[in-house]
Amino acid sequence: MTSFEGVKIFKGLENVAIAETSLSYINGEKGRLVYRGIPVEVLAEKASFEEVAFLLWFGYLPNRKELDDLIRFMADSRDIHPEIEDHIARLPNKAHPMDVLRSCVSLFGVFEDLQASHDELQRAARITAKLPTIVSYHYRLSRGMKPVPPDKTLDHASNFYYMITGEKPDEEISKLMNSILILHAEQGLNASTFTAMVIASTLSDMYSSITGAIGALKGPLHGGANEKVIDMIEEIGTPENVESYVEKALKEKRKIPGFGHRVYKTYDPRSKVLKEYARKLSLKMNDAKYFPIAEKLEKVVVEKLAHKKIFPNVDLYSGIVYKLLGFPKEIYTAIFAIARVVGWTAHVIEYTKSNKIIRPCGVYVGPMNAEYIPLEARE
Amino acid sequence: MTSFEGVKIFKGLENVAIAETSLSYINGEKGRLVYRGIPVEVLAEKASFEEVAFLLWFGYLPNRKELDDLIRFMADSRDIHPEIEDHIARLPNKAHPMDVLRSCVSLFGVFEDLQASHDELQRAARITAKLPTIVSYHYRLSRGMKPVPPDKTLDHASNFYYMITGEKPDEEISKLMNSILILHAEQGLNASTFTAMVIASTLSDMYSSITGAIGALKGPLHGGANEKVIDMIEEIGTPENVESYVEKALKEKRKIPGFGHRVYKTYDPRSKVLKEYARKLSLKMNDAKYFPIAEKLEKVVVEKLAHKKIFPNVDLYSGIVYKLLGFPKEIYTAIFAIARVVGWTAHVIEYTKSNKIIRPCGVYVGPMNAEYIPLEARE
Repeated sequence: MTSFEGVKIFKGLENVAIAETSLSYINGEKGRLVYRGIPVEVLAEKASFEEVAFLLWFGYLPNRKELDDLIRFMADSRDIHPEIEDHIARLPNKAHPMDVLRSCVSLFGVFEDLQASHDELQRAARITAKLPTIVSYHYRLSRGMKPVPPDKTLDHASNFYYMITGEKPDEEISKLMNSILILHAEQGLNASTFTAMVIASTLSDMYSSITGAIGALKGPLHGGANEKVIDMIEEIGTPENVESYVEKALKEKRKIPGFGHRVYKTYDPRSKVLKEYARKLSLKMNDAKYFPIAEKLEKVVVEKLAHKKIFPNVDLYSGIVYKLLGFPKEIYTAIFAIARVVGWTAHVIEYTKSNKIIRPCGVYVGPMNAEYIPLEARE
Repeated sequence: MTSFEGVKIFKGLENVAIAETSLSYINGEKGRLVYRGIPVEVLAEKASFEEVAFLLWFGYLPNRKELDDLIRFMADSRDIHPEIEDHIARLPNKAHPMDVLRSCVSLFGVFEDLQASHDELQRAARITAKLPTIVSYHYRLSRGMKPVPPDKTLDHASNFYYMITGEKPDEEISKLMNSILILHAEQGLNASTFTAMVIASTLSDMYSSITGAIGALKGPLHGGANEKVIDMIEEIGTPENVESYVEKALKEKRKIPGFGHRVYKTYDPRSKVLKEYARKLSLKMNDAKYFPIAEKLEKVVVEKLAHKKIFPNVDLYSGIVYKLLGFPKEIYTAIFAIARVVGWTAHVIEYTKSNKIIRPCGVYVGPMNAEYIPLEARE
C-alpha cells in the first residue's frame, strides 16, 4: 500500500476484502485450503470432480440422485455446437490453446444467448462440460489428428484424458485425473476469479465472465506459470545441476518457477498432494528424469528461501504430472482452466446474488489545468 | 462498506483507490472530467478522435507529423483479417453485437499473437482501428446488406459512420461523430476499464484484456444502459406523459434509465454537451419526437431527485443522438466500446508499467470443519 496526498492506494488489492464468500477458506500461514469447510486433500482423495463441482455450486455434497443428475446433465452437454467445431477447424494450428478457449467460450455465448432457456447453474455446468471438448478438439486438429468425440460412459475428468490421448484411462489414472481437477477447482478471489466477478457485477452474462477469466488465467503471473516449470527442469537436466541452477537464479534475482505464492506462506497443501501423485506416476510410467529434479529443487529452494516464506506452489509438481500423463506442454494452462471454471462460475453466482458493481477509483497524478493548444501551434 | 468479525469489506470497491493514473480526473461533485488535464468539453469541441487517442496513449497532444503518422497507421489497420471476416459471416444474424465484438477481438488475438511484431501502443492502435469494421460488418451482413469496406480518406469516426450507413457524412455529422467518440473515450477506473487492468495485471496479452472489457461493458449496469433510454422514450410517447411516467417509476422504486451515476453527483459534463448535440440534430433531421421528451424528462427528474444527487448521465442524450444519426439501437453499446477502447488500452499500458497482480481476498463465512460424508451415507 502506498499513499498520495493522504489517499491510500491499495495496489494489487493485497489483503483487501471485497466480498463475503462461503466457497473456500485459505489459511496461508498454516497451508490450509477448504472448499465449503472440507479440506481440499480429503476431497482430492475421496471425491469425484462432479461431486466437488456440485459442492461448490450448490453448497452441499449431493446425494446419489442429485449427483447422477449432474453427471448426466454434464455428459449430455459435452458436445460443442457444430458451428463452433467449424470455427475451431478454421483456427491456425499454432494458435495458443488459451486463445482458442477464450474465443470458443465467447462464441459459445453468441450461440447460447439466442436460446436463453438455462438458469445460471445450468449455464455453469454447460460451460464446464464443454471446455475439455474445445481444448482436445483444437489440440488434436492442430496436430493433424482426428478429434475424439466425448464418451458419455466416462466421467468428466476421465473423458478429458480420453479425448486428448485417444485412450481410455485405467482406474488409477482416472482417479488421478479427478484429483488434479479437484485440486485446481477453487482458490478464493485470485485474479481470474476476480475478473469473472468484475464482469458479472455489471450484470453482463456468464459467457462474458468466463471469457474474461480465461484471458486472465493465461497470464504468466497466474495460470501461465506451470509451463515454465517443465522448461526449467529440462534446462537443469539432472539432479546434480540443481544446486548451481538455484544459486545462479538467486544471484541474478530471477524468480524460480513453481515456488512462492501471494497467499501461501508455507507449503501449499495442493503441492504436497501433487508431489505424491508425481512420485507414483514416475514409478508407473518408469520415468526417472523429472521427479528427482523437482524433488531436489524443492529441497534446495526451501533450504535457501524458507526464511523468506517461499515454498513449493501448486505448479511445481502439476507440470510433471501432466508431462507424465502424456499431455503436451502447451495445454497445461488450459487444464487449469478446465478445473477452475467451477470456481469462476460459483463465485459469479454467489457474488451476483447480492450484487454491487465493482468500480474502484484511481488517484489522479497528472496535470490539472492543461491548455488545449491548437494543432498549428504545437511544436 | 460492511464488516465481518472486524474485517472491513469494500463491496464494489467504492472510493477505493487502486492505482495512480495520469489519464483522467473526475470531480463528481463539480461535474468535471479532464483527459490529461484538458476538460473533455474542450476536446469534444476542438479536437479529432485520433488527436484525443494520441493524447491518452502518449500523454501529450501530437504535432502535425505525429498526428498524421497515427492517422495513417490507424487507417491502414482498419481491414480485418479475411479469416475473421469469414468468422463474422458465419455468426447468426441475431447475435448480440457486443458478443460478436468480444468474440472477434478474441479471435483477432489468435491471429495477431502469431506475429507478435507490434509494441503495446501499436497493438492498442490496431485494436482501436478494427472495432468499427467488426461492428459494421456484422451489422450489415446480419441485415442482408453488403459490408462497406473502410475508406482510408475518411477519419476514424467519419469512416465508422460511413461503414454503418453507406453514406459519407457531411462536415457537421463528421464533427459530431468525432465529438461523441471523444466524450466516451475515457472515464477513470470504471468496471470495464478495471476488468482490462485485472487481466493485464497477470501479464496476459492486450487482446485478452480488451476481450474481457467488452464483456464487462455489455452489462446493463454499465454500457448496456443506453439502449434502455430509447425504449423508455418510445414507451412515454409524448412530453405530456413524462410526469406520470416518472411518478409511476418512483412509486414502483424503478430506476429511470439515463439518470444517476456512481461518481457524478451533479450534471455529468458529457450529458450537457450531448444535450446540445441532440437539440441541433433534432432540428437538422427535422425530428420532433425524441428530444422534447428527453428534455422534459430531465426537467421533471431533476426537480424530483436533485436532492438525492440524481442528474442526467451520459446515456440520456447519447441514445437520441445515435437514433437521429440512423444507428440501430442494438449497436449503441458497441459504439461505446469503439470509443472506450482508447481508455481501456491506455490504462492497461499505464498500469503494467509498474505492475502488481490484482488479487483481492474474500471474507470466509462458510462452515469451518465440515466432514466428508461418503456418498452412500448421504440423504
